[in-house]
Amino acid sequence: MILQAEPLTPDAFAPFGEVLAVDPAKAVEINAGFTTRYHSLATVESDADVILSIFRGRVRPLEAAMLERHPLGSQAFMPLSARPWLAVVAGRPDAKACRAFLCRGDQGVNYRSGVWHHPLLVLDREQDFLVVDRAGPGENLEEHFFANPLIIHS
Amino acid sequence: MILQAEPLTPDAFAPFGEVLAVDPAKAVEINAGFTTRYHSLATVESDADVILSIFRGRVRPLEAAMLERHPLGSQAFMPLSARPWLAVVAGRPDAKACRAFLCRGDQGVNYRSGVWHHPLLVLDREQDFLVVDRAGPGENLEEHFFANPLIIHS
Repeated sequence: MILQAEPLTPDAFAPFGEVLAVDPAKAVEINAGFTTRYHSLATVESDADVILSIFRGRVRPLEAAMLERHPLGSQAFMPLSARPWLAVVAGRPDAKACRAFLCRGDQGVNYRSGVWHHPLLVLDREQDFLVVDRAGPGENLEEHFFANPLIIHS
Repeated sequence: MILQAEPLTPDAFAPFGEVLAVDPAKAVEINAGFTTRYHSLATVESDADVILSIFRGRVRPLEAAMLERHPLGSQAFMPLSARPWLAVVAGRPDAKACRAFLCRGDQGVNYRSGVWHHPLLVLDREQDFLVVDRAGPGENLEEHFFANPLIIHS
């Protein structure tokens, strides 16, 4: 089955979380006018610690053979180089429910707690991301494997 | 008074917070080997919500005329383009106590709660940062102004 990627927009992504990108509607001038703060693009969800990590994603086949989700906390990905990447999400753990979003290099996403998503998919070369997620006791990972992988067209 | 910047290293920055950068000692292979997670480079401090924002810093004179601090939460800055920038911090609100760190474009910092620091200083052109900090009720900003600005040499 083929999954065609669609452009990432805040409205299209709203069922799954928030888009992390410059948004003039959220601009506040601070630091004596030398900084624009695009304020509170997303709120982190966590029942325990919130930690900052870097994920280095390597090129892999553009297929989705499984989904995962983190019931106890949100997980945000912000690209650290301006190259496009893919976010694959689903409202339920079902290949037919999957949507693929082609994210610009200046767009990150915050997956809300419990949102099914595919692990990191970069496109043409290795790419680093700042990741904001939860750390603490308890089981914060569920996985669901498909009978047949989805082929993603970006 | 002149403040000469020094290179940003985890050890030199330890009194003020954490460096956000790829660190082989923190590498964990995940996602079937397609992602390296540099795990838990910093833990966010907050007594309220943790939010994600983007700061767009503009070029300004490389001077420090004041410091600020956030007693109720940490504040992390991660550059979204690979250009160097400056972090100015101090153990106490005193021009003589200031240290300037020249951060590489692949290095962010997490200022721990209550650490005196200068607002965002970019070097040669406008630069965006992902910022992870606290939002909530209460007074989370203190400022201290110097009699004479420090001149920073990068």
